[in-house]
Amino acid sequence: MKNKNLTALSKLEIEDIIKNAIKEDLGAYGDITSKHIFGKDDFSESYIICKEKNGAVLCGIDVAKFIFEEIDSKIKFLKLKNDGDFLNTREKICEIKGSTLSILKSERVSLNFIQHLSGIASATKKFTEISSPYSIKITETRKTIPNLRILEKYAVRCGGGYNHRFGLFDGILIKDNHIAAAGGVSKAINMLRNKIPHTLKIEVEVKTQDELLEAVESKADIIMLDNMGFDEMTKSVKLIREKLNDRCKIEASGNVRLETLEQICKTGVDLISSGAITNSAKAIDFSLEFKS
Amino acid sequence: MKNKNLTALSKLEIEDIIKNAIKEDLGAYGDITSKHIFGKDDFSESYIICKEKNGAVLCGIDVAKFIFEEIDSKIKFLKLKNDGDFLNTREKICEIKGSTLSILKSERVSLNFIQHLSGIASATKKFTEISSPYSIKITETRKTIPNLRILEKYAVRCGGGYNHRFGLFDGILIKDNHIAAAGGVSKAINMLRNKIPHTLKIEVEVKTQDELLEAVESKADIIMLDNMGFDEMTKSVKLIREKLNDRCKIEASGNVRLETLEQICKTGVDLISSGAITNSAKAIDFSLEFKS
Amino acid sequence: MKNKNLTALSKLEIEDIIKNAIKEDLGAYGDITSKHIFGKDDFSESYIICKEKNGAVLCGIDVAKFIFEEIDSKIKFLKLKNDGDFLNTREKICEIKGSTLSILKSERVSLNFIQHLSGIASATKKFTEISSPYSIKITETRKTIPNLRILEKYAVRCGGGYNHRFGLFDGILIKDNHIAAAGGVSKAINMLRNKIPHTLKIEVEVKTQDELLEAVESKADIIMLDNMGFDEMTKSVKLIREKLNDRCKIEASGNVRLETLEQICKTGVDLISSGAITNSAKAIDFSLEFKS
Amino acid sequence: MKNKNLTALSKLEIEDIIKNAIKEDLGAYGDITSKHIFGKDDFSESYIICKEKNGAVLCGIDVAKFIFEEIDSKIKFLKLKNDGDFLNTREKICEIKGSTLSILKSERVSLNFIQHLSGIASATKKFTEISSPYSIKITETRKTIPNLRILEKYAVRCGGGYNHRFGLFDGILIKDNHIAAAGGVSKAINMLRNKIPHTLKIEVEVKTQDELLEAVESKADIIMLDNMGFDEMTKSVKLIREKLNDRCKIEASGNVRLETLEQICKTGVDLISSGAITNSAKAIDFSLEFKS
Amino acid sequence: MKNKNLTALSKLEIEDIIKNAIKEDLGAYGDITSKHIFGKDDFSESYIICKEKNGAVLCGIDVAKFIFEEIDSKIKFLKLKNDGDFLNTREKICEIKGSTLSILKSERVSLNFIQHLSGIASATKKFTEISSPYSIKITETRKTIPNLRILEKYAVRCGGGYNHRFGLFDGILIKDNHIAAAGGVSKAINMLRNKIPHTLKIEVEVKTQDELLEAVESKADIIMLDNMGFDEMTKSVKLIREKLNDRCKIEASGNVRLETLEQICKTGVDLISSGAITNSAKAIDFSLEFKS
Amino acid sequence: MKNKNLTALSKLEIEDIIKNAIKEDLGAYGDITSKHIFGKDDFSESYIICKEKNGAVLCGIDVAKFIFEEIDSKIKFLKLKNDGDFLNTREKICEIKGSTLSILKSERVSLNFIQHLSGIASATKKFTEISSPYSIKITETRKTIPNLRILEKYAVRCGGGYNHRFGLFDGILIKDNHIAAAGGVSKAINMLRNKIPHTLKIEVEVKTQDELLEAVESKADIIMLDNMGFDEMTKSVKLIREKLNDRCKIEASGNVRLETLEQICKTGVDLISSGAITNSAKAIDFSLEFKS
Repeated sequence: MKNKNLTALSKLEIEDIIKNAIKEDLGAYGDITSKHIFGKDDFSESYIICKEKNGAVLCGIDVAKFIFEEIDSKIKFLKLKNDGDFLNTREKICEIKGSTLSILKSERVSLNFIQHLSGIASATKKFTEISSPYSIKITETRKTIPNLRILEKYAVRCGGGYNHRFGLFDGILIKDNHIAAAGGVSKAINMLRNKIPHTLKIEVEVKTQDELLEAVESKADIIMLDNMGFDEMTKSVKLIREKLNDRCKIEASGNVRLETLEQICKTGVDLISSGAITNSAKAIDFSLEFKS
Repeated sequence: MKNKNLTALSKLEIEDIIKNAIKEDLGAYGDITSKHIFGKDDFSESYIICKEKNGAVLCGIDVAKFIFEEIDSKIKFLKLKNDGDFLNTREKICEIKGSTLSILKSERVSLNFIQHLSGIASATKKFTEISSPYSIKITETRKTIPNLRILEKYAVRCGGGYNHRFGLFDGILIKDNHIAAAGGVSKAINMLRNKIPHTLKIEVEVKTQDELLEAVESKADIIMLDNMGFDEMTKSVKLIREKLNDRCKIEASGNVRLETLEQICKTGVDLISSGAITNSAKAIDFSLEFKS
Repeated sequence: MKNKNLTALSKLEIEDIIKNAIKEDLGAYGDITSKHIFGKDDFSESYIICKEKNGAVLCGIDVAKFIFEEIDSKIKFLKLKNDGDFLNTREKICEIKGSTLSILKSERVSLNFIQHLSGIASATKKFTEISSPYSIKITETRKTIPNLRILEKYAVRCGGGYNHRFGLFDGILIKDNHIAAAGGVSKAINMLRNKIPHTLKIEVEVKTQDELLEAVESKADIIMLDNMGFDEMTKSVKLIREKLNDRCKIEASGNVRLETLEQICKTGVDLISSGAITNSAKAIDFSLEFKS
Repeated sequence: MKNKNLTALSKLEIEDIIKNAIKEDLGAYGDITSKHIFGKDDFSESYIICKEKNGAVLCGIDVAKFIFEEIDSKIKFLKLKNDGDFLNTREKICEIKGSTLSILKSERVSLNFIQHLSGIASATKKFTEISSPYSIKITETRKTIPNLRILEKYAVRCGGGYNHRFGLFDGILIKDNHIAAAGGVSKAINMLRNKIPHTLKIEVEVKTQDELLEAVESKADIIMLDNMGFDEMTKSVKLIREKLNDRCKIEASGNVRLETLEQICKTGVDLISSGAITNSAKAIDFSLEFKS
Repeated sequence: MKNKNLTALSKLEIEDIIKNAIKEDLGAYGDITSKHIFGKDDFSESYIICKEKNGAVLCGIDVAKFIFEEIDSKIKFLKLKNDGDFLNTREKICEIKGSTLSILKSERVSLNFIQHLSGIASATKKFTEISSPYSIKITETRKTIPNLRILEKYAVRCGGGYNHRFGLFDGILIKDNHIAAAGGVSKAINMLRNKIPHTLKIEVEVKTQDELLEAVESKADIIMLDNMGFDEMTKSVKLIREKLNDRCKIEASGNVRLETLEQICKTGVDLISSGAITNSAKAIDFSLEFKS
Repeated sequence: MKNKNLTALSKLEIEDIIKNAIKEDLGAYGDITSKHIFGKDDFSESYIICKEKNGAVLCGIDVAKFIFEEIDSKIKFLKLKNDGDFLNTREKICEIKGSTLSILKSERVSLNFIQHLSGIASATKKFTEISSPYSIKITETRKTIPNLRILEKYAVRCGGGYNHRFGLFDGILIKDNHIAAAGGVSKAINMLRNKIPHTLKIEVEVKTQDELLEAVESKADIIMLDNMGFDEMTKSVKLIREKLNDRCKIEASGNVRLETLEQICKTGVDLISSGAITNSAKAIDFSLEFKS
């Protein structure tokens, strides 16, 4: 079933990323192999095909379309699948017709985006399949590949996940250093409460029951349980629910692995955040094949 | 032992990447949590520490230094390790003294580079440890994360690997589509021989013995054995050596995995290229800790 | 008394704005008048002076410092006042020593920033002087001069104000179109509640008591009373406080003028937002004078 | 009557300004409110309407068109008014049909340009209505909002004004510092006469009758009477006309206000320049309304 | 006969160069002469015509087309000649129909590219007419005009020449400093052989017979005979052919002039490189004429 | 004797040009030859030397300094000559000490600027040596190499020349198309007189005596005699002087060659403009030599 949370990226948001990626690969002399073999009137039909053995969640089909069209506005790029779709092995995701030279120029750049982003979407999907029966959300963290965050967060949504704050600027997260400097959880929360844009919630990371109590008393909007054991987590969730009810969201974080995910879900938290789904996702195998 | 092939990147080459990554995380309002807790005279000492269980090869220490200094030119960043060094768990890689606000702004951006690049260097290292007794080189491919190729290829060198062509523009690689369009391997080689910059070699990808024979007869400078079985690879290497001796380099490619690497090495090829070392490397765990 | 909410901008955040502004004024040929009159060894001392009759709140002194230093790294720029300070007529805000040519190149660009930003800070100050006895915050809106938002929001802070969301991306604000499309206030809130980053509050703009009731029932995090009369506003505030207590922030908006501000304050809202403080602030008169 | 001096800006000249302004408002996550409420097939019709009580001069309709089309090339933007037109309260300036999401993304950015530029055009118009019976031109100065000069000067033309030099690079203006350094008005003029591009006139700012005499004797092309009283200005104009006839243009400058404008006009100068029309213009009230 | 080596540049590769060049000429105020004389409905037909007395080789027609279309997408630009074609005096190279204002804005920028690039193509052609009976290639060097290298190398191809490495990054060239530092030609070659991307050949510059011998023994892929006399060159070529046969390419370099070119050709080298064809080519005379 | 008109460029004005030029040459992999031969501790001393047989006028020494320092801030670059100086063969223009790798990276980029700009300065010098006894100025035109205009115009000043308008935006030049469209010279002048910034003069290009008479009657500020024979030019100058005296500058233009320059000077014009000094100047021979 398609993820309702999925909203597309606009070309404007990613055109710099795309143009730079094209220039990175084409550089000074362009595709020096192909341009001495193909003429500008050579025409081909081709497909991009998922070759991953156990299938995968697609992410990047629109990015690929932008790339092919940026390189050659006359290319016909027909989407056969959408971002967020599950793909079986050897399923075609798009059909591309046009100048052979343009297709070859676009091939690797497009595949590099699709392989990486589908890797993230697929890794996220494995998490959300476990967490969704519990109505618990999976989110990424700020542990992303530099300069691709906008796309990686989109890939997380394609995998059924949700997004955390984008960066340091659009969300408050009080961590151990802040707590130490402020002289305690309550003091940190109060220092921020009246200064930040009123549109933002205050999230605080707690490692101990003492910190947790302070966070609850100061009515933190979100409490992140950092690296807690399952029992302590369960106990913490219970405390928060008693005191703050639906007023406070609870996030579990810290070395979340697929193996331990279901146990974390059972603690009753609202969200689970994982760095691995963005920074350690294996690329999915795709290739471009010419129609023979 | 330090990799002799390791030459550093200059700041000029990567300053756009770095500045964009900083802006990605700091965005419109900067670090809104920290700036309401710390004052501009708060000063800290901190370390970046490798937390990976089985250790890792470091890559990105200079990138991190550039980031901290870009954010605050008064920061003192003391390197304790160099790119290419092997790190044991909990080894410190640098000491950072200066404004707490600046350290917190730089933390995540720096760690994201170090985690990713060290992931690539470490993955490469596992390959080169197997291949170097055979005097066989490991190279990456063009399967890299978009817009980070210059850094990822540097990471490969930090892991003891060597670099393939950078992009489409600085190396010739004749693939199946080119062969089909040209009407055979020899024709493709001859079409290119007189047109490309004379400073470039001609590499051709062969899948069959027929293609191989043609490549040998046309005196290809480099022959890539694509997705061949070990026996066929061994036989192919023998043939090439007989006919072309040291005049032709032999590259093995296609689904190279750690498990099969030693067998490929035994076939006697000169180089083995792998996409997985750049596009599927797991991030290495690092964190920034404040001196208490 | 100095505004505690004031945190400085870093050069990195505004360097593109500054460099473009310098190029805008110097263009193709540089300062063609001065460069044929002064030599590169001519040296001057100068001041920037506030000439506004009734004084003003300073904003832009750091921006000016960046500009002078960008144009000539040997310039000595000594701050005599800080952003947020109140200035009397003819007070000096800085002393500048160095190459006459560099001072003349920097003069107008710097003054244009200071005049505009001090205009915003001073306009904000007039509002905050009225609202602060009521412990009510003044915020700007998204009605800013294009491409200067980061600086204009900083100017608001210099005038004792607080910041609203930066743009469309870092805060939720449900307006009439959203309500109409969703089929009511509650439906709109619920559509968003589970999709947006959990770090963001939900603000809803209400124009009628029916909308208000729905917003209260759906536990909106922030309710904006849009263009209401004083009585209706007072009644609305009372209702919200009864039902949601401190859980909900109340923002007054719509044609807020200095003359009506105190009456709005008496309604007991938490925040008052004004577009005029950013998009209609009169420039403050400053000039650069050479020491004779 | 339409201003004959009005020539349009091309998209090429302002596309960077427009793209940056869009990115400023949409930032990392886009319009997070609207995109969870509207689907990409939701379609609307809307108008931009002038809500200013006493009407206004329009400026920015083409900029708005560029923005809507940049955000969504399928938007239909029908101009109902042109830049330079006078608008009555509640007059529609354009009709916009297309994706609701695209309209909402474009709304605030477009309005911010139109409000600001129409503010400048309208302020200028008030000046030119007084000065045009005297055949005297109104020009802006270099006191503009940083990075919007090209648009603000266009707005001045929309209000019936004329443009002064663009920056330091395309016009000569000898001021007090130059005069002092050169050792007098004549010396300054002569230092420049043979060095500057021959396509430029020489303007000199004079504060006293002595300076004026020197400027006349040195045949300055333009004399700016700086901050003079009406009588002194009248006397100065008479002197210049006697000696240089039509060969010299006369500009009045310094604290030009609407109240004193007619008196300045009566002195017989050729041009009057004002900083206030660009840096202190009040925004004009416009809003986007959906067709219900 | 058309040069088979000629492959076109894509707009993506040169759009920054083109946009900057347009902005350079149009600057702040656009074409201030034309825009007060022509209206936006004035329409013209015009041609670009080669006025060079002895004819010339065309280069830059596609660049011109990009410029006209960038400035005005409604312009009709009909190519009458292609890059690489030989033009007789007064031959038309294109017909341009559309807005007079757009044509005048585009005129000088386009002509500047065409004049310069055709200058290079024509200079190259004079060389290749002499060298091609000998089957010897002419290449440019890195002595190009800054920031136009991609276009200048294209112009060389239009003149029948071939390209050398693009920059320092995509070709190996061992020069005297490298030889001195390495301790001899062989040592330098060996230091590089195992470190550089295997796709690159090794070229070494030799000045003496000793250096030549070393280069031959180390099996350099390319030997550049630097500034040798004709006899020494002939002798060197003979030696290389005996020892390395077709395995080594031979390049002649150093003060190659049209007068001495045929003698160099007679030595039997494979390639001759010239800096003068790019950095000292005389502009070819073209002008835009309106149909009367 | 040093040119009094010479004022330096600031780094800010040309830093984009310089950075792009460096990236153009260093590209993806940097200096792959040198970095495998030299270590980062190798240190050298070197000179840039003029090797032009008959000497040359230097231009570009500051540009070179910027490049070396941009590539390596620790380089010691000691200027031995200044821009505008005449250089004899084998004169050293600067001494450079520092990292060998940095020197080699900077070498070609710097030399490319110096060779080209000194070519323009030297070509200009040949013209100004003939024209200066007549007190006639030489100026360039808009026929410059794209994206180097700011530097080329500086080079013209280094050769003793003067600058014409920078582009279409900062000077009025009425040409044949404008005259035709306006319906005559007088009409064109009058159409512009009241619309353009009052700081600009009006220059008109005349080809016939009829046009000349009209230009004189309309009191054009500058008259350009386009492609006239010597006699007609002499007659035209006489007429203009009689009617307009010093009020009008006279410019000769059109196929100005060194051979005909003195004859043009004898006609008594004020300025002579030449496209060839910028777009057809031969590069001057410079090289970087290491101290042995």
